[in-house]
Amino acid sequence: MILTIFFIFSLLSLAHASVVDFCVADYNAPKGPAGYSCKPPSKVTANDFAYHGLATAGNTTNIFKAAVTIASDAQFPGVNGLGISISRLDLAVNGVIPLHTHPGASQLLVLVKGTIIAGFVSSDNAVYLKTLHKLGDTMIFPQGLLHFQINVGGSNALAFTSFSSANPRLQILDFALFKSDFPTEFITATTFLDAAVVKKLKGLFGGSG
Amino acid sequence: MILTIFFIFSLLSLAHASVVDFCVADYNAPKGPAGYSCKPPSKVTANDFAYHGLATAGNTTNIFKAAVTIASDAQFPGVNGLGISISRLDLAVNGVIPLHTHPGASQLLVLVKGTIIAGFVSSDNAVYLKTLHKLGDTMIFPQGLLHFQINVGGSNALAFTSFSSANPRLQILDFALFKSDFPTEFITATTFLDAAVVKKLKGLFGGSG
Amino acid sequence: MILTIFFIFSLLSLAHASVVDFCVADYNAPKGPAGYSCKPPSKVTANDFAYHGLATAGNTTNIFKAAVTIASDAQFPGVNGLGISISRLDLAVNGVIPLHTHPGASQLLVLVKGTIIAGFVSSDNAVYLKTLHKLGDTMIFPQGLLHFQINVGGSNALAFTSFSSANPRLQILDFALFKSDFPTEFITATTFLDAAVVKKLKGLFGGSG
Amino acid sequence: MILTIFFIFSLLSLAHASVVDFCVADYNAPKGPAGYSCKPPSKVTANDFAYHGLATAGNTTNIFKAAVTIASDAQFPGVNGLGISISRLDLAVNGVIPLHTHPGASQLLVLVKGTIIAGFVSSDNAVYLKTLHKLGDTMIFPQGLLHFQINVGGSNALAFTSFSSANPRLQILDFALFKSDFPTEFITATTFLDAAVVKKLKGLFGGSG
Amino acid sequence: MILTIFFIFSLLSLAHASVVDFCVADYNAPKGPAGYSCKPPSKVTANDFAYHGLATAGNTTNIFKAAVTIASDAQFPGVNGLGISISRLDLAVNGVIPLHTHPGASQLLVLVKGTIIAGFVSSDNAVYLKTLHKLGDTMIFPQGLLHFQINVGGSNALAFTSFSSANPRLQILDFALFKSDFPTEFITATTFLDAAVVKKLKGLFGGSG
Amino acid sequence: MILTIFFIFSLLSLAHASVVDFCVADYNAPKGPAGYSCKPPSKVTANDFAYHGLATAGNTTNIFKAAVTIASDAQFPGVNGLGISISRLDLAVNGVIPLHTHPGASQLLVLVKGTIIAGFVSSDNAVYLKTLHKLGDTMIFPQGLLHFQINVGGSNALAFTSFSSANPRLQILDFALFKSDFPTEFITATTFLDAAVVKKLKGLFGGSG
Repeated sequence: MILTIFFIFSLLSLAHASVVDFCVADYNAPKGPAGYSCKPPSKVTANDFAYHGLATAGNTTNIFKAAVTIASDAQFPGVNGLGISISRLDLAVNGVIPLHTHPGASQLLVLVKGTIIAGFVSSDNAVYLKTLHKLGDTMIFPQGLLHFQINVGGSNALAFTSFSSANPRLQILDFALFKSDFPTEFITATTFLDAAVVKKLKGLFGGSG
Repeated sequence: MILTIFFIFSLLSLAHASVVDFCVADYNAPKGPAGYSCKPPSKVTANDFAYHGLATAGNTTNIFKAAVTIASDAQFPGVNGLGISISRLDLAVNGVIPLHTHPGASQLLVLVKGTIIAGFVSSDNAVYLKTLHKLGDTMIFPQGLLHFQINVGGSNALAFTSFSSANPRLQILDFALFKSDFPTEFITATTFLDAAVVKKLKGLFGGSG
Repeated sequence: MILTIFFIFSLLSLAHASVVDFCVADYNAPKGPAGYSCKPPSKVTANDFAYHGLATAGNTTNIFKAAVTIASDAQFPGVNGLGISISRLDLAVNGVIPLHTHPGASQLLVLVKGTIIAGFVSSDNAVYLKTLHKLGDTMIFPQGLLHFQINVGGSNALAFTSFSSANPRLQILDFALFKSDFPTEFITATTFLDAAVVKKLKGLFGGSG
Repeated sequence: MILTIFFIFSLLSLAHASVVDFCVADYNAPKGPAGYSCKPPSKVTANDFAYHGLATAGNTTNIFKAAVTIASDAQFPGVNGLGISISRLDLAVNGVIPLHTHPGASQLLVLVKGTIIAGFVSSDNAVYLKTLHKLGDTMIFPQGLLHFQINVGGSNALAFTSFSSANPRLQILDFALFKSDFPTEFITATTFLDAAVVKKLKGLFGGSG
Repeated sequence: MILTIFFIFSLLSLAHASVVDFCVADYNAPKGPAGYSCKPPSKVTANDFAYHGLATAGNTTNIFKAAVTIASDAQFPGVNGLGISISRLDLAVNGVIPLHTHPGASQLLVLVKGTIIAGFVSSDNAVYLKTLHKLGDTMIFPQGLLHFQINVGGSNALAFTSFSSANPRLQILDFALFKSDFPTEFITATTFLDAAVVKKLKGLFGGSG
Repeated sequence: MILTIFFIFSLLSLAHASVVDFCVADYNAPKGPAGYSCKPPSKVTANDFAYHGLATAGNTTNIFKAAVTIASDAQFPGVNGLGISISRLDLAVNGVIPLHTHPGASQLLVLVKGTIIAGFVSSDNAVYLKTLHKLGDTMIFPQGLLHFQINVGGSNALAFTSFSSANPRLQILDFALFKSDFPTEFITATTFLDAAVVKKLKGLFGGSG
């Protein structure tokens, strides 16, 4: 038997042992345009490929009555470099995921519980709206477009949304405008919102400028 | 007001109206390496971006006690060209998604119900196994590697799996070998399985050769 | 000499003549996720690779006192499939390119004339602002992020902006919200703008719903 | 047994039969930036995945004493969309593959017979030269750089070169300048070659202008 | 002349000297999803672009009577990041490259010597088989699909196979199942092989569990 | 208000703060195939996204009466990883950008001042020529093909050229042949230029060998 195994080993002639199928994120090494550096294969375990952070409901006690819990490459090291990631949406009754974009990915939502209306706006200003109410109903949101989800049912809603990138990012419109230090004069000039409206929302969301 | 709108329109000078953000599959036009041809934007509706085929449980009355229901670009026209798709896994008690690969995508599973053991084998023959048992537990399966899921709980299990491609494909090992016309002599020569074993499984799965 | 040329020809053995370096858009054939179908090489001329539509100043007699003239694959057939396109920005005094995103591309602006302030907001709500005032000053706007340009000088401003895609698209925030049929109740719910504000701006931009 | 097979079939729920792993070129349908349209899977046979055109030596009775036989997507339908192709190099004694680039691919050469010197020039004008003389000696030529191969041995040489694209293309410097209708005045202005040199080589290669 | 050269140099205005056309692997620096870090250009030599490890026949004194010698980015630093790599297949009489996949690449085989039968199975369980027997016969194996090669001639066979990736990887079915610590109970459950068959093959290949 | 802001913050559950939309080049960290490593987001400022090096005219007091000033990822850290870059072309009267390729990108030129003739040669040796003379005239040069620009007007010309890559590179034909140490014997063998011609041009450009 020892001989047999020796025979088998010689099928492959490899100079290095590092031929691996994944690039588990090493958060302590340099990051590049394609993602994080890879952990040495010898330090990778099954735990790197599983993530339990979406098993806990997000806290919806906030102004939106909703929570987005994200498992992208910055949280889930196993997805680094693999072109996919996921998040969990919790919406209390009347909860809203506010208008936002994912600058780097298309998004695919699958409903688990409740009834939601979701929609997106295309770059020629068409609005596509759907009501989802059955476990397994899915909807696709093409990359980079403004979209939202609203719980229109009588109970909590739960959905998972996958992304076509390990680093999809999330730009929430209200936060970009009103939770930042975006100068009010530039907001009014580039949106036609009145300064009073901007200042009121900056008060609500904590922005300055 | 009419004047104002006229003013606004002139901001953009576009020669064609076809600047769109998606490429909804037109199943009656040619397909290319990047996916299906696009439906004309004028024929696209919100229905193209939603899919209800995963809202029905798959039929698990089969030898695997499991079902895979797929929503890739061939079923769900809205995901065409967007680099993402999804499937639904239903596993009855003791149900098994048999050993398989997705030749064109990494896969991200999120558990909705039940308890499963899932695992994959890397190309240096390391086996990564995890038990998932809470709603929201996730696991990533890197592109092209052999993997499986088994229901190890006492009740039905349900999961959704997303893919980093609109056309991930699914190669089930047993089907490739034993439900095809793969000549038995070549199977035995390239796997070291005995001909009797091959023939028995071909009988079970319906293969010939 | 005839013999020589015969000799030379035989260096290459090609079965088809269609080995070309470009895919000039054929607007009458199917479009796919990677772009338009290609014109037959025999019908391609030098004119397909040049575009003169940016040699005329855009009309800035509109509410923004600005104009965006686009040369993407829908206008400029030669850029189809080549991952690059361009547009021209004309800004009269006090002109504004309103807050917008390019869902499918990063943008690189080069100033030709005038003085502008430009800025973008990152997905963690940081605002990056720069004043450009010399011919040749450049600024990069990473893919998918909200950004704007304002003419802050005393005369007309002119800039060209290139894109990392032949189909970058342009989603103008005000148009998405207020020139569309986005239902007012969903806008208010997902932006925290008051219904009165929304309706006033819909009046200005021509939206409904 | 019939029942068993019925059971197995129900594992998968697919709406279309066209979930395929390849896109064999259909030369009679539109071509796009990503390659040729796909033949219907029902018309694909094993013959589409094999190519015998490289089994015949190229004709080296020409001015270069060499031949390049190409199997890219325009000749070998099975490689369409798969990001790889191949060519065969035959070099008689003193044969030369003249200075050229592949605009769309890196090239990997493996020597089968003979002794060649090969080299490329980087964009910072460094020259990398290697002599290959054993069956299996390999050399990589990074994408788009000028390179050449010369038979420096006493007998015929044979090599295969693979490309990182199904459509690598081949721009031979002498053909681009001297076998085209590139106006002589522009050649002299942009290369500093004398007009007499240009005209002599145009005579040799058959160019005009 | 010195003056002339000074003149010429001023054509280009570059801030850094590191504008290079390749990224030769530095095995001592971090690796990322796109490959190894690059060696500083000043340390790169022509030797980095050639590889001689395929010039020696692999050792076929093993159970498969065959050998695969790989030159991917882990062995051949010059191919790092260039989307191509190569391997050498040696098959003694009756030698077999066992059933396997390349999770990250399509493969293009060119026969140099001998007669082989090669085949792959698509994800809809069609089997594509070809006999190759002439020097230069080629065959393409689309990405991620199960395939094999068998020497069916009366003498040794030799082939080179190129890949559409610098890191194609190789997952050998028998090794994944029977040379790993894949628990036997999970193998039987997910393949329908009997435990006795599994244990016998684990004995042969050296697996545990 | 403090309570409100607290509420808002809890919408997002992120484990790391490094979810950013760009990868500003860190020139002191490793570089990989996809570009430079990223600066930590905390060190990024608006200055990283602007570049002023193209606001100064290049020095055209050289043999070409022209200058190329480049702003690729090696000069302009903000474009790293974003798939776009830019350069400035200054041409004095009769100035010439000599025949060259960009191995890694297509190029889009926009004319700002003067009159130029530009052209490229395809890989089937067709020559495409255009005269550009109005501010805003644009021309596309597909990836990797030989091309040039000549000032044919009576005054200085100015153009900006964008690239479909952050690292397009520039291979100038005369520099590759005559400003390098490319051995003269190999140049003559692979181009059919006479040795005397080669040596004269090496004298002009400073090459050796």
